[in-house]
Amino acid sequence: MRIDLHTAAQTLRGMDDILLLTHRNPDGDALGSLWALGAALRKMGKTVSFHLSGRVPSNLAFLAEEPLDDSFRAGFVVAVDLAESSLLGDELAALYADKIDLNIDHHRSNKLFAAQTLLDEEASATAELIWALYKELGVALDKKSAEQLYVGISTDTGCFRYNNTTAKCLFVAAALVEAGADNGEINRLVFETKTKAYILFETMALNSMRTYFDGKCAVITLTGEMFKRTGLDDSDIHMISALPRQMEGVVAGVTIKEKSGGLYRVSLRTNEPVDASEICAVFGGGGHKLAAGCDLNGNLRTVTAMLLKQIEAAFRAHHLL
Amino acid sequence: MRIDLHTAAQTLRGMDDILLLTHRNPDGDALGSLWALGAALRKMGKTVSFHLSGRVPSNLAFLAEEPLDDSFRAGFVVAVDLAESSLLGDELAALYADKIDLNIDHHRSNKLFAAQTLLDEEASATAELIWALYKELGVALDKKSAEQLYVGISTDTGCFRYNNTTAKCLFVAAALVEAGADNGEINRLVFETKTKAYILFETMALNSMRTYFDGKCAVITLTGEMFKRTGLDDSDIHMISALPRQMEGVVAGVTIKEKSGGLYRVSLRTNEPVDASEICAVFGGGGHKLAAGCDLNGNLRTVTAMLLKQIEAAFRAHHLL
Repeated sequence: MRIDLHTAAQTLRGMDDILLLTHRNPDGDALGSLWALGAALRKMGKTVSFHLSGRVPSNLAFLAEEPLDDSFRAGFVVAVDLAESSLLGDELAALYADKIDLNIDHHRSNKLFAAQTLLDEEASATAELIWALYKELGVALDKKSAEQLYVGISTDTGCFRYNNTTAKCLFVAAALVEAGADNGEINRLVFETKTKAYILFETMALNSMRTYFDGKCAVITLTGEMFKRTGLDDSDIHMISALPRQMEGVVAGVTIKEKSGGLYRVSLRTNEPVDASEICAVFGGGGHKLAAGCDLNGNLRTVTAMLLKQIEAAFRAHHLL
Repeated sequence: MRIDLHTAAQTLRGMDDILLLTHRNPDGDALGSLWALGAALRKMGKTVSFHLSGRVPSNLAFLAEEPLDDSFRAGFVVAVDLAESSLLGDELAALYADKIDLNIDHHRSNKLFAAQTLLDEEASATAELIWALYKELGVALDKKSAEQLYVGISTDTGCFRYNNTTAKCLFVAAALVEAGADNGEINRLVFETKTKAYILFETMALNSMRTYFDGKCAVITLTGEMFKRTGLDDSDIHMISALPRQMEGVVAGVTIKEKSGGLYRVSLRTNEPVDASEICAVFGGGGHKLAAGCDLNGNLRTVTAMLLKQIEAAFRAHHLL
């Protein structure tokens, strides 16, 4: 059942021994929302604990709230930023998948699996909703909770760069800085710092970049050797596939990633009017209009040629060539 | 003479045939402030023209306001974002250096050279002041003027990432998006798009990166050959010197740029507690605590060794080694 902000606040006021959960491998919005909500409930005198699946990124550890020990017995289970229960990860899903009393989220894809759901698809981040809950509950924001919520909003908007950065989201960010969030320092920790391994990987990725069709298509190739040399895995390099489309004049940016046994995973980012999902659909893949993916078998030369052929056809259909 | 917002608005109300100027090689804040102020004055029925020194970056051209032809005779000269008159560039300085009636600026280093100066050193960008002028003058923001001001604020704050991003600045950005600024598209144009030459330069710069002292110091070397190969000059690559300090664990990030005849220009960025200006002062340079520069003579090997020796001494003084 979907509920509104007022009802969610009323429900939380009436409960105690509250367990807070979020999705596995939690990001800034998951953790920031989780900790800030927990801190608010504790300020209201409630007993609260947290159960996480996956490690806390080291640059966010300073914002953590402590979980309780094993003697804690949950009387009410709240999830944040959780679009579907399977995203809890195996361990937490086995324990809580069908026991979530209240879910607070902003994903359009939310499956409404919880007993009650506070969902705002217009919100840039779940942290925006937690900020509204602070107001509704009448709990004052201190520096730490303001920073937890700032991390949530800034992470989900690429530090206010992505399309989902609304006026509301900028306004909430202003309120959080006003409440004491050290946004400059958090931005440095979260957005300006790269590991040595990542910089090496990015350098190799840029070295591999080739352009085609008068610079309208750029292709980056990520080999198994590059992963081996840096010790990174897929989850560390999700920013890389944005690189080819960043080049001025590029309409189709391709990232080809070598998996094992002649399998290649392709990420395609396009600009209007070229439809990435149509091109990937030719190879059995899919996605959105401007960002899609597919898997291809062969070797690097044949896989690249197959992709370029479809991209060329799309360019011609739109009179770009 | 310093004046306040109300007096600046009163002055502008009383004037006509207004010429607007800004610093040479204008950036997003210079152009955004210039055009938005011009548009406001035109909406008030005034005759306005612009005189620029240097080209308008191609990704900002869609926000331009038209200058008038040569028959325009200035009755009142206004500068924006201009810290000192020499920054007008030779051509404009010869014409207007001592004829500026009103200057609107946010630089701490402002020399108060104009007859009247509206200066707010706390503002993240001059565009913040122009936004306040719109309110004071009672001129409505339309989509285009909101986008001009958004470009100004987002450019000067690194898209809300730098330390100068205040609550006020985020609040003004929220108001501009509310007024119709397509912030997602502007961010894509201004922050997500790099030229092919820039990407090639960045790749070569990353390839040159070396680390010292357990990864606490990273050094990038920019050779004359790299500038020749890409056709870029200093003004195109000001983002490069941020790269070495971005690596996790780096306390001193060094960029060594080859000039001609055995001269090397050094940019040093540090993290607390290391003082970049102290290290650069040893070589006759200077700057701020966390960002400073100096010139060195020799060859790449000797220049690097001289720098590393001073950096090592600073690291030891702070017990980092």
